[in-house]
Amino acid sequence: MTVRFAILGAGRIGKVHAGAVASVPGATLVAIADPMPDAAQAIKDAYGCDIRSIDAIEGSADVDAVVICTPTDTHADLIERFVRAGKAVFCEKPVDLSLDRVKDCIATVEAAKGTLMVGFNRRFDPDFMAVKAAIDAGRVGRVEMVTITSRDPGAPPPEYITRSGGMFRDMTIHDFDIARWLLGEEVTEVFASASVLVDKRIGELGDFDSANVILRTASGTQAIITNTRRAAYGYDQRIEVLGSDGMAAAENHGENRITLADKAGFHSAPLLNFFMSRYTAAYANEIAAFVAAVADGAPTPTTGHDGLMALALAEAALKSIATGRMVKVSEVL
Amino acid sequence: MTVRFAILGAGRIGKVHAGAVASVPGATLVAIADPMPDAAQAIKDAYGCDIRSIDAIEGSADVDAVVICTPTDTHADLIERFVRAGKAVFCEKPVDLSLDRVKDCIATVEAAKGTLMVGFNRRFDPDFMAVKAAIDAGRVGRVEMVTITSRDPGAPPPEYITRSGGMFRDMTIHDFDIARWLLGEEVTEVFASASVLVDKRIGELGDFDSANVILRTASGTQAIITNTRRAAYGYDQRIEVLGSDGMAAAENHGENRITLADKAGFHSAPLLNFFMSRYTAAYANEIAAFVAAVADGAPTPTTGHDGLMALALAEAALKSIATGRMVKVSEVL
Amino acid sequence: MTVRFAILGAGRIGKVHAGAVASVPGATLVAIADPMPDAAQAIKDAYGCDIRSIDAIEGSADVDAVVICTPTDTHADLIERFVRAGKAVFCEKPVDLSLDRVKDCIATVEAAKGTLMVGFNRRFDPDFMAVKAAIDAGRVGRVEMVTITSRDPGAPPPEYITRSGGMFRDMTIHDFDIARWLLGEEVTEVFASASVLVDKRIGELGDFDSANVILRTASGTQAIITNTRRAAYGYDQRIEVLGSDGMAAAENHGENRITLADKAGFHSAPLLNFFMSRYTAAYANEIAAFVAAVADGAPTPTTGHDGLMALALAEAALKSIATGRMVKVSEVL
Amino acid sequence: MTVRFAILGAGRIGKVHAGAVASVPGATLVAIADPMPDAAQAIKDAYGCDIRSIDAIEGSADVDAVVICTPTDTHADLIERFVRAGKAVFCEKPVDLSLDRVKDCIATVEAAKGTLMVGFNRRFDPDFMAVKAAIDAGRVGRVEMVTITSRDPGAPPPEYITRSGGMFRDMTIHDFDIARWLLGEEVTEVFASASVLVDKRIGELGDFDSANVILRTASGTQAIITNTRRAAYGYDQRIEVLGSDGMAAAENHGENRITLADKAGFHSAPLLNFFMSRYTAAYANEIAAFVAAVADGAPTPTTGHDGLMALALAEAALKSIATGRMVKVSEVL
Repeated sequence: MTVRFAILGAGRIGKVHAGAVASVPGATLVAIADPMPDAAQAIKDAYGCDIRSIDAIEGSADVDAVVICTPTDTHADLIERFVRAGKAVFCEKPVDLSLDRVKDCIATVEAAKGTLMVGFNRRFDPDFMAVKAAIDAGRVGRVEMVTITSRDPGAPPPEYITRSGGMFRDMTIHDFDIARWLLGEEVTEVFASASVLVDKRIGELGDFDSANVILRTASGTQAIITNTRRAAYGYDQRIEVLGSDGMAAAENHGENRITLADKAGFHSAPLLNFFMSRYTAAYANEIAAFVAAVADGAPTPTTGHDGLMALALAEAALKSIATGRMVKVSEVL
Repeated sequence: MTVRFAILGAGRIGKVHAGAVASVPGATLVAIADPMPDAAQAIKDAYGCDIRSIDAIEGSADVDAVVICTPTDTHADLIERFVRAGKAVFCEKPVDLSLDRVKDCIATVEAAKGTLMVGFNRRFDPDFMAVKAAIDAGRVGRVEMVTITSRDPGAPPPEYITRSGGMFRDMTIHDFDIARWLLGEEVTEVFASASVLVDKRIGELGDFDSANVILRTASGTQAIITNTRRAAYGYDQRIEVLGSDGMAAAENHGENRITLADKAGFHSAPLLNFFMSRYTAAYANEIAAFVAAVADGAPTPTTGHDGLMALALAEAALKSIATGRMVKVSEVL
Repeated sequence: MTVRFAILGAGRIGKVHAGAVASVPGATLVAIADPMPDAAQAIKDAYGCDIRSIDAIEGSADVDAVVICTPTDTHADLIERFVRAGKAVFCEKPVDLSLDRVKDCIATVEAAKGTLMVGFNRRFDPDFMAVKAAIDAGRVGRVEMVTITSRDPGAPPPEYITRSGGMFRDMTIHDFDIARWLLGEEVTEVFASASVLVDKRIGELGDFDSANVILRTASGTQAIITNTRRAAYGYDQRIEVLGSDGMAAAENHGENRITLADKAGFHSAPLLNFFMSRYTAAYANEIAAFVAAVADGAPTPTTGHDGLMALALAEAALKSIATGRMVKVSEVL
Repeated sequence: MTVRFAILGAGRIGKVHAGAVASVPGATLVAIADPMPDAAQAIKDAYGCDIRSIDAIEGSADVDAVVICTPTDTHADLIERFVRAGKAVFCEKPVDLSLDRVKDCIATVEAAKGTLMVGFNRRFDPDFMAVKAAIDAGRVGRVEMVTITSRDPGAPPPEYITRSGGMFRDMTIHDFDIARWLLGEEVTEVFASASVLVDKRIGELGDFDSANVILRTASGTQAIITNTRRAAYGYDQRIEVLGSDGMAAAENHGENRITLADKAGFHSAPLLNFFMSRYTAAYANEIAAFVAAVADGAPTPTTGHDGLMALALAEAALKSIATGRMVKVSEVL
């Protein structure tokens, strides 16, 4: 079976997913929708698909699945519409910035027995997958401590801060998902400590640019997430899992693998500076995993529930900052 | 001027310091005191010094400085006695397990215009010194985030737990000191999350074996300390300092520097497994720094105040665990 | 201008180049030729091009350039035919196993004022390009010593040995080209020492599986190439350039970038095991470079002369083995 | 049994060995001899030994062993005198710059049933020992290819060139010894290619500053040595052993183990710049090994024969340069 796709939204991430759909065996790109004609045309030119409206795609019998790459505030509505229309749905995170809206949306998906995969691309990074596989193979013993270093190369413009829901709902949400995935046990408590060190304007908008978060599970296993919006040396993405028998760690990706040596010492390149370059393989792999699940009628590797829980951890982190104490996840769910 | 030393206590750390005193130019080992004759004799045999009682050393005109390597509960008394006797004092951490007793002891030292250096050996590790020098030279810009990974290779026997004051006062205390030193700004708030994952008996004694600690300064700069009592791959000691312009990081020390490659991949040795092997150079450097300060009449690089502050952070961490909230250091001091 | 391509030969390397042509902006794949209908059909299915005979392609007005991926003994004839037909030609190395035939072929290309690029893919590896760029930017000063470690993961079947012209003409030829490129000065003398250590049958065919080669230029600059047909840990491809002011080195590519630590130490993955995985980017880049040269009417970055010189170094190496002495390149050209 | 030592020669290397003797358990330093009173006095002051003449040491009943650290042209005579006087002898390499003189000296040692260890310190480097142990434990399978990168940080003054016998007899001789040790099979053929790239004056003296050497054994196993007198980034000392089942490699030693990251990338320190800093542990270990052999009446780990063979390889290399061909070691022995 070939899974026939439409992509909703031809922006930056829409282009990435269009390329992935076009290159994954077992998938074909049928249509693109975007209010900006030039953006849609560029996808059409590159991959030879139709340009259709979202309404038309909803009624298209030749579309099995959609990838939602539209603005965040449209995600939940589109998920519900397309699940009801019988399409398998892949939606970029987050489902919504409101926990209640996310819960409603998940309920709708479940009622419709629909398929929803939420785009947590990092789970599909080959290195992170290798770390997870090592854990699952028992290579580190019982997981005890997860350390996630996640640093953006530079802060986004202030207008993005408001629109995206702030650092925890937009940036740390990826780390929350990775932590849940690696811990292998649900997080029950969250403590967060956040600062404004990079850009005052971010603080003026009520957000933060530097944070440390501690997560705990019922058994006492912990994860620590360390975030900043500015790492001069590039996009710093490391994970490390300590277990009773050892450790598994994924290293960064530099711009190249050469070393220069001179009288001052040894020098290597800064890190890949852009999340799309760093996670190129992850974006392709996540679409391939979605295609495989849809083709097999199998559960998707990430779900609406994963989207909900990651957002709940963000809400708990914000409540922890507001109260200065450890917050139970059950307080916000 | 040659600084003439006596060492109080001929145990494991006493031997290390005896070796350091014997090898540092400008220092000479005059006497050793220990209630165990064999232990004292071993030092005498190795370095040709006298065996004297602590009382005798207190009255010895040919002794300028003492190194206190006796059990923790004798530290504060011995510091006071020897400072009053006009000797420069180097004391192993901690000064005492009671904050009040530490404060009294520091007051006594100050009243006597005495010299007291507290043994935070890690500040004298060549790699950590290079990180500090890089910060001081402006290589990372303004310090924003300090990350300390500090993992023992294995948990101590339960009886040691009680005697040592527990994980925070005994093990994390080194990391508290390193954090204060690297942050370059006093810590004002502490949050800690601790678990028992390695050895149930440690939990039965009211202590922990796995912990994450977040420290904050008034300006919002943060440090994160991640500790466990068991790292299967050896004694894991890493520091990383993120600043506005970059990062400085100190790497671990393996048992050797060879790589073996075979069909399974590339393999290198586990880490040095013992703190004395890992910090050999640090122990020698700290005694050399003490000798230099005494010889020059200069302030010692670490002081009783450093001992007090590190212990205060341990107390704040314990209070944070008890209350589940961020604790101001001023609450415990 | 879009460069319209036909690919001659739909085998393993033909598929790689078809993919590259399809994905490079400014190029389009018009036709594929292969005596095996299934192989040609697979390319047609994947990229939507025509299937044509080589004769038909020679006369096709809608083809600007060809990529020759046929067996080695057809290369020179096809180069001559297609250059005479006015097509730009990209040919896999080697042009021919006979130096005289290569010279004739180059003469024909020159007489026709044709365009010929010989496929030395490694020059287009991003890391090797970064090393070359560092040299050209003066980062290592004057080049003095080039070290190339080039080890196959396993020996080919004996029948391949004969067909390919043996280790020096087939495998080392890439290293000869890289050495010439990095030295920046023509090689004048060659010494080689070869052994049969991996597979006796290779020796029975008169070939070798392990070799060290020293190259010298007129100014005394040297390169050393170390080759084997079997590296248990994967496809080992490293280059290192020492200059008067420093060194530039390109490291290997492992299967992933994770590290596992346990009581035995630290472990990472073996190297990518297949030349097509290791040099994926290089294959894409070399076609892009060919497209750019053809579109601009500019010289190609590698030429027939490069193919000739690399083969001459192989012949000189073989003569050195036969005589036990340093051989001047002028003796074989 | 405590081995009682005298050291002949209180120069740079004499001081190193005096420190080693003083610190090795089972050894004691009895006397130092040097024509320069200040040099001898410095050793006496540091270690409390006597100052004696060489003649007096020869007749000293309280001296069991001597370490010869005098100029090269005195080595053979002193070895013979002290072996005849019944002392165990440790002599810095080389025994002599003349192969015939070395043979005579070895014959004298054998006739006297004397003990002679030649100081090839690198065999006692902990990392190189770990590589050798990995080979002996079968970790790489059958040894096939040894690669030695050995680069000095800077060229010596021209006057040293003449005195030391030139690059091959003075610098490469260490690499010849390491190659023999790692190959585990005697070298039968040598090819060398040398250049003058660093300092013209070295060439005017008939010596070289840059060289590649290929060694072969009867079974076809090979070693490659790459040398230069100038590596801008420090003292580069690497070995790599490829076998049928894998590889063992020893990495360089930097001045520290910190990494600095900034917008230009990642930076680490240059290599330790001085052979005595790089091989500190090796110097201590070789004296300890000598002490152990003397105390046990066991063979020393390196012998006069090792000194002879390393020098023979140097002579063969020089003959290879003169003739442009592979030279059998039997031609020079």
